[in-house]
Amino acid sequence: MISVIILGAGNIGTHLYKALKKAENVTVNQWYNRSIKTINAFQTEVDVTDDLSQLKEADVYVLAVSDEAVAPISKLLPFENKLVVHTAGSVNIHDLDKKNRRGVFYPLQSFTKTADLDFSDIPICIETLEKSDYNILKSLASGLGGPVKKVNSDQRKVLHLAAVFVNNFSNQLYRIAHEIVESEAAEFDLLKPLILETAKKVQDLSPYMAQTGPAKRNNQKTIKKHLALLEKEQHKQIYKLMTKSIQDTHGN
Amino acid sequence: MISVIILGAGNIGTHLYKALKKAENVTVNQWYNRSIKTINAFQTEVDVTDDLSQLKEADVYVLAVSDEAVAPISKLLPFENKLVVHTAGSVNIHDLDKKNRRGVFYPLQSFTKTADLDFSDIPICIETLEKSDYNILKSLASGLGGPVKKVNSDQRKVLHLAAVFVNNFSNQLYRIAHEIVESEAAEFDLLKPLILETAKKVQDLSPYMAQTGPAKRNNQKTIKKHLALLEKEQHKQIYKLMTKSIQDTHGN
Repeated sequence: MISVIILGAGNIGTHLYKALKKAENVTVNQWYNRSIKTINAFQTEVDVTDDLSQLKEADVYVLAVSDEAVAPISKLLPFENKLVVHTAGSVNIHDLDKKNRRGVFYPLQSFTKTADLDFSDIPICIETLEKSDYNILKSLASGLGGPVKKVNSDQRKVLHLAAVFVNNFSNQLYRIAHEIVESEAAEFDLLKPLILETAKKVQDLSPYMAQTGPAKRNNQKTIKKHLALLEKEQHKQIYKLMTKSIQDTHGN
Repeated sequence: MISVIILGAGNIGTHLYKALKKAENVTVNQWYNRSIKTINAFQTEVDVTDDLSQLKEADVYVLAVSDEAVAPISKLLPFENKLVVHTAGSVNIHDLDKKNRRGVFYPLQSFTKTADLDFSDIPICIETLEKSDYNILKSLASGLGGPVKKVNSDQRKVLHLAAVFVNNFSNQLYRIAHEIVESEAAEFDLLKPLILETAKKVQDLSPYMAQTGPAKRNNQKTIKKHLALLEKEQHKQIYKLMTKSIQDTHGN
């Protein structure tokens, strides 16, 4: 049994709390948040606090706080030589105060507070400075049911960056598609199966192999039609740049 | 029962042949291809030909050919006043020769010859000049099991353009992510659940509501870190342009 205390009640903190609370090999000893209001509703099932000096004992302290808050909160912790981990993709393990044993527990997923998440699908990227701490985090992660992977800080940085491309930027392409079809009162719903199929395809096939379309075929006639159809200058720029990128990849 | 003849054996033609062959309310009377070699293997189950003058009778002639071939092949057809449809997203219905009744039967999906496709997920966008022809195409499409939608040429054009954004361009973002993580020997596999989750999220939530990340939060520190991490100038340009696009959408 691993005992854990979660610090933070943002998207990641809240999802982690709910998932770890359900994990059979984990006890959540306490939940800290700067503002007690956010977590007061949970006080019937877990000890809640907004006072760092009241933090209890635990095997792992999980800082599920904003990137900027990782270093200062780790400094404020009123204890030493405990295992303290952060959950941030782009924060170095050494940003944690060295008075404690340090680690990273990074769930590679996009968290929205409202949407329910199944952690059994979410890879947990783990980094520690001590091997014994790695085994503790591995047990903690395995309680969530998903894949667990050893990932160093350099790898985590590029994964976090790549996640912005596949998640935030792809989603913005969906948004632009939404704007484009609405300009002719066509239905965005008609694109939803294609969006899903595009994501499913690269589960088995490399994105290189999965590519199709006018850019890859260098179909200049269609490309010109499309550019003429786009009303916003920014959408034209994105079309040109992505088309160029596809053509560079596929040697056109 | 609707009888159909398919012309063309590229990606769409092949997938359509297989799906229509299985449809209970459809008979495939013949399959034409310019090169008989491509379809010879099917001659035990369907009449195959490479000679337009040998085309049989049917309720619908489906031109599943490249965009450029739609107009010339429709001119070469040795009959009049039959229902002839093309399957191309960006070709106008009037590009079909007017000696026949004209229509469009556009499956809104990305076709790769190797990957199997379930047509019950694929919206069929239908356009005709005559209402009675619309009902014929609607029956034909319903045999495939998926949603059927009346879509005019202007709407089809923007849907085809939007499909390039959500399919080809999203896939290229996956490709770039692949390159980025490989630069540090991290695993692209770790990103696959996030890719799928991103596509799933917009099935219920608008892309506007689904957006998260450093661009939306205007987290300049992370944006700078990411730009410094990108090695290729083109990837930096894409990062900047997509970030700007997200910020314009969300009013930062």
